[in-house]
Amino acid sequence: MPDLRTFVNPKKRNQTWATSAKKFIKRRIPITGWIKRYSREDAIGDLIAGVTVALTFTPQSIAYAALAGLDPQYGLNSAFAGSLIYVFFGTIREIVIGPSSLMALLTYQYTSHLNVDFVVLLTFLVGVTEFLMGVFQLGFLVSFISAPVVSGFTTATALIVAISQVKGLLGLTLETSGIFDNLTKIFQNVNNVRLGDTILGVTCILCLLLLRKLKDVRISKSIKGREIIHSSFWFISTGRNAIAVIATSYLTFWYTKNDLQPPFITTKNVETGIPSMMAPPITTQIGNQTYNLQEMISELGISYVVISIVSVLANVAIAKVYVSSTIDASQEIMVLSACNIAGSFFQAIPSCGAFSRCGLISASGVRTPLAGLYSAGLTLMALRFLSPFFHLIPRSTLSAVLISAVIFLVDGKIFKPLWIADARLELATVIATAFVGLFIGVEIGLLFGVIVGLFSLLYKWARPKISVIRTQTPFGEYVQVRPESGIYFPSVDYILSLVTKLVEDDDGNGLPIVMDCKGIKGTDYTTAKGFVAITEMLEKRKRQLVFLDATSECQKIWKSAGIKNERFWISQYLMDNLYECIDRVEEENEMALLEVTND
Amino acid sequence: MPDLRTFVNPKKRNQTWATSAKKFIKRRIPITGWIKRYSREDAIGDLIAGVTVALTFTPQSIAYAALAGLDPQYGLNSAFAGSLIYVFFGTIREIVIGPSSLMALLTYQYTSHLNVDFVVLLTFLVGVTEFLMGVFQLGFLVSFISAPVVSGFTTATALIVAISQVKGLLGLTLETSGIFDNLTKIFQNVNNVRLGDTILGVTCILCLLLLRKLKDVRISKSIKGREIIHSSFWFISTGRNAIAVIATSYLTFWYTKNDLQPPFITTKNVETGIPSMMAPPITTQIGNQTYNLQEMISELGISYVVISIVSVLANVAIAKVYVSSTIDASQEIMVLSACNIAGSFFQAIPSCGAFSRCGLISASGVRTPLAGLYSAGLTLMALRFLSPFFHLIPRSTLSAVLISAVIFLVDGKIFKPLWIADARLELATVIATAFVGLFIGVEIGLLFGVIVGLFSLLYKWARPKISVIRTQTPFGEYVQVRPESGIYFPSVDYILSLVTKLVEDDDGNGLPIVMDCKGIKGTDYTTAKGFVAITEMLEKRKRQLVFLDATSECQKIWKSAGIKNERFWISQYLMDNLYECIDRVEEENEMALLEVTND
Repeated sequence: MPDLRTFVNPKKRNQTWATSAKKFIKRRIPITGWIKRYSREDAIGDLIAGVTVALTFTPQSIAYAALAGLDPQYGLNSAFAGSLIYVFFGTIREIVIGPSSLMALLTYQYTSHLNVDFVVLLTFLVGVTEFLMGVFQLGFLVSFISAPVVSGFTTATALIVAISQVKGLLGLTLETSGIFDNLTKIFQNVNNVRLGDTILGVTCILCLLLLRKLKDVRISKSIKGREIIHSSFWFISTGRNAIAVIATSYLTFWYTKNDLQPPFITTKNVETGIPSMMAPPITTQIGNQTYNLQEMISELGISYVVISIVSVLANVAIAKVYVSSTIDASQEIMVLSACNIAGSFFQAIPSCGAFSRCGLISASGVRTPLAGLYSAGLTLMALRFLSPFFHLIPRSTLSAVLISAVIFLVDGKIFKPLWIADARLELATVIATAFVGLFIGVEIGLLFGVIVGLFSLLYKWARPKISVIRTQTPFGEYVQVRPESGIYFPSVDYILSLVTKLVEDDDGNGLPIVMDCKGIKGTDYTTAKGFVAITEMLEKRKRQLVFLDATSECQKIWKSAGIKNERFWISQYLMDNLYECIDRVEEENEMALLEVTND
Repeated sequence: MPDLRTFVNPKKRNQTWATSAKKFIKRRIPITGWIKRYSREDAIGDLIAGVTVALTFTPQSIAYAALAGLDPQYGLNSAFAGSLIYVFFGTIREIVIGPSSLMALLTYQYTSHLNVDFVVLLTFLVGVTEFLMGVFQLGFLVSFISAPVVSGFTTATALIVAISQVKGLLGLTLETSGIFDNLTKIFQNVNNVRLGDTILGVTCILCLLLLRKLKDVRISKSIKGREIIHSSFWFISTGRNAIAVIATSYLTFWYTKNDLQPPFITTKNVETGIPSMMAPPITTQIGNQTYNLQEMISELGISYVVISIVSVLANVAIAKVYVSSTIDASQEIMVLSACNIAGSFFQAIPSCGAFSRCGLISASGVRTPLAGLYSAGLTLMALRFLSPFFHLIPRSTLSAVLISAVIFLVDGKIFKPLWIADARLELATVIATAFVGLFIGVEIGLLFGVIVGLFSLLYKWARPKISVIRTQTPFGEYVQVRPESGIYFPSVDYILSLVTKLVEDDDGNGLPIVMDCKGIKGTDYTTAKGFVAITEMLEKRKRQLVFLDATSECQKIWKSAGIKNERFWISQYLMDNLYECIDRVEEENEMALLEVTND
């Protein structure tokens, strides 16, 4: 048994001012920390990852801009600003901030009837809202996203992205919205499937999946140059996306060089320039109508609040997948805010992290957030110089790269443990979040999952575990009512009706009721009022009710509402008080009625 | 000590079919129960209360109709339908269903730009929504209104009603909205205060307050006819509102009989007839535009959902004030629904209970819901016959009746116990609910209070009480981490950072960490994943972590996510396992590692 107990306060530390300042800077501008340990391996890893992700990121950004109903450059601007800012302020290497399907979908939803000035202003307002969320430490709100919700959300997003890429893989050019529409139109257009694209795409997927395994290949110790082979395998495996893109682009080049039409669709030509830096618009015109800033903001309604919350939740959901220790949620919100505010100065659409991208950069062997620098650079170069070459990339290659990245985000592994643990509500939460996400919208799925989780938590306060035990002793019987947790206002009606039923059911017996309060770790005034009602109800029926072993804190609150001091007993003297004649144990009683001290 | 424990299930009872049916009818049509015990005293009490409340209720209903922007009869129709239906289905004698300031305000808010057909349809839709809330047993939601919220809500409503009556008391005729506007305009028009109204009103208030005390007067036993005097006092005290109304009406009559202009303002003439019964409108016309049912419903938006929720919450808040035992919330919702659906067939505005009215009928000595029959009858007579006489009632008398009724609803008594109990959040909740209620709107105040309560409950799951104790034993030291309640997903990040900090703070010591799970009554998969992350983090730092005395339920969930069997220990063998050499206690260890059975 322990013979001495000392309280250890984990927060209290002796720090000098300089240490604190250093810590603060390291926390707010994380690059100042990790850049000191930056090695050659890191540089190689980041270069490959940054370039690889940029090769997908760039055409993706164009696609997302189109999804938001805008011209290509707005997506690329967003990718550039997001990648660049995250390098300096980001804490999680796997996160690449930029346009995403989620953001693009929501942006389209709120601004499709307006012009691009509204979109840029929206980006700015999203940044400001995120900043306020960061300042007011609203990051803790993400604690309310449970693992099953993250799992369902991830699966839904991955499936939506994968299904959206199937048409590209098959060489179909379809205008679709939602996965239902997507699948329907693919089946309707099954005769228009292009053989060239399909062969190229499927081959790419197979190669990518095989190459993904390459780095895990075990090489027999007897083989010479084992280390070199292993390194090469790792390099090829890590750079597989880049290899696929370069190889298939060369294929296009070969066809065009030989004056042949390639048998697959290639990426659209991007004709843009470097974004000019300017403040977000504060006035605009649609048709004859001129909007000032106030009118523009009022026109945008609550869109920026919705998009901010979703972007923060999505980003932290991604972070939770990739980081197994604690996440500095406040910092992640602040950097997201910086990306969007900066983005609005480069005419960008709202940005956040995206699972597909994060999956890709993680699979490409990213080492630090510095990889974003290469992505940003390539995006900028794409805007300025590389656009003539991007048209060589076959569309089905990009689809294959995306599909083979996101397919591993479909979280099938969560079902077995939940099944084993018999956690039915959590299983249902995964499935419901995924289904709502797939068929209504991932942000709605996320919110739905969060709300289900919150209700289940509130329900625990409304229906606390209470055991009712008829206890026989050598001296007589009593009914023990034992709540197992804190008792707060939502459970008062429940306890009241429980005790009422208990009394109505065996009124004849008239046994004393002992409320065992050992498990009650907290309570409130509403409970106190409810307990007063119970004691009054029992007094009318001439039934005894005592509170056993209540902490002094609970006693204080309950007494304040009118529960008498005499009703608080301690278990040591329970038998004497309940069954012995009162005069014999009078002195002991007095001791028994002393307040129980808090443990 | 108890030697045998038997579980008593309070729900399980042997009931015949007939008993069940009888119980069901008694529950759904409560009049079938209490009417059998109806006595002469009940009849007298109900008659006086019913008539008294009707004398206030009727002019009030006219005022509420005006508040909702409608002609007088719509308020009276609502009062008639509400009073009548509640007699048969109501469970709480103090509740009088009818138009209320709350409902009138909300109705005006949603339908001021539409015509009366929309209002009647709204009443119907409110009834249907309430019916659905009843069917889906959403009555339990009212458990989430805490006593402080009810207190703040009641106080705000009482103050708003009282302040709204001051102008009537002073003989001022002002168009006001909100208490701020009310008070401002009263001060602006202080020179227009009419002496006659003021003297009459203030005299009425004083008389009413004195008469209220009359029934509590103790009569010396030596006085002859003590019983008769006591009964007379009770009768006068109970009927004080009726006395005030009749006496002052006679005053008006005296003035007019003598061809004098009374020195005070009297009630408006009501020119109406008995409402005809007809289905709620399904089509209407505003100007040139014709609306069909679908268009009408879409025009009403979510107004009926808001009004339904507020009416149910308000009704149960009232019920909680007047009923100290359990409330049959489902039945109260169903009867409210019936009142509104029936009301919509009599061209009524949405109705619910109101504190002022309930205070009045309670103070008038109501005995059963049958009092509503007299109110309904008088309302009907007012609509048909009595309207020529109602104009005799001085307006300031009605104001005085209302003020001296609602002033006792201002709940000052809650502050002392909350102060004693040191319940700061609850104190703040009372004040905030009241303030928001007063200055923004009582329904907003109510929702605000509920939301604060829910957040405080959720916060308890996010920041559970966890004691960290450095324990010294004769064999060595260890760090005990003991959560005091269930551990669910919102607390995972918190625990993770707590343990991380703990380890970072005294890394040098390398003491084993013992997670004492005795207090953990429930857990989930997210926690399990978090604990896996903690064990992995500690393994990297070569720190030991064991889970002590976890229930088998917790073990099942945590093991499903990957916590190893070896980490679950029981306290009996803790010392041996932590400090003795392993071979000596090997056998004991095996026993120690057996699962702890659930208590």
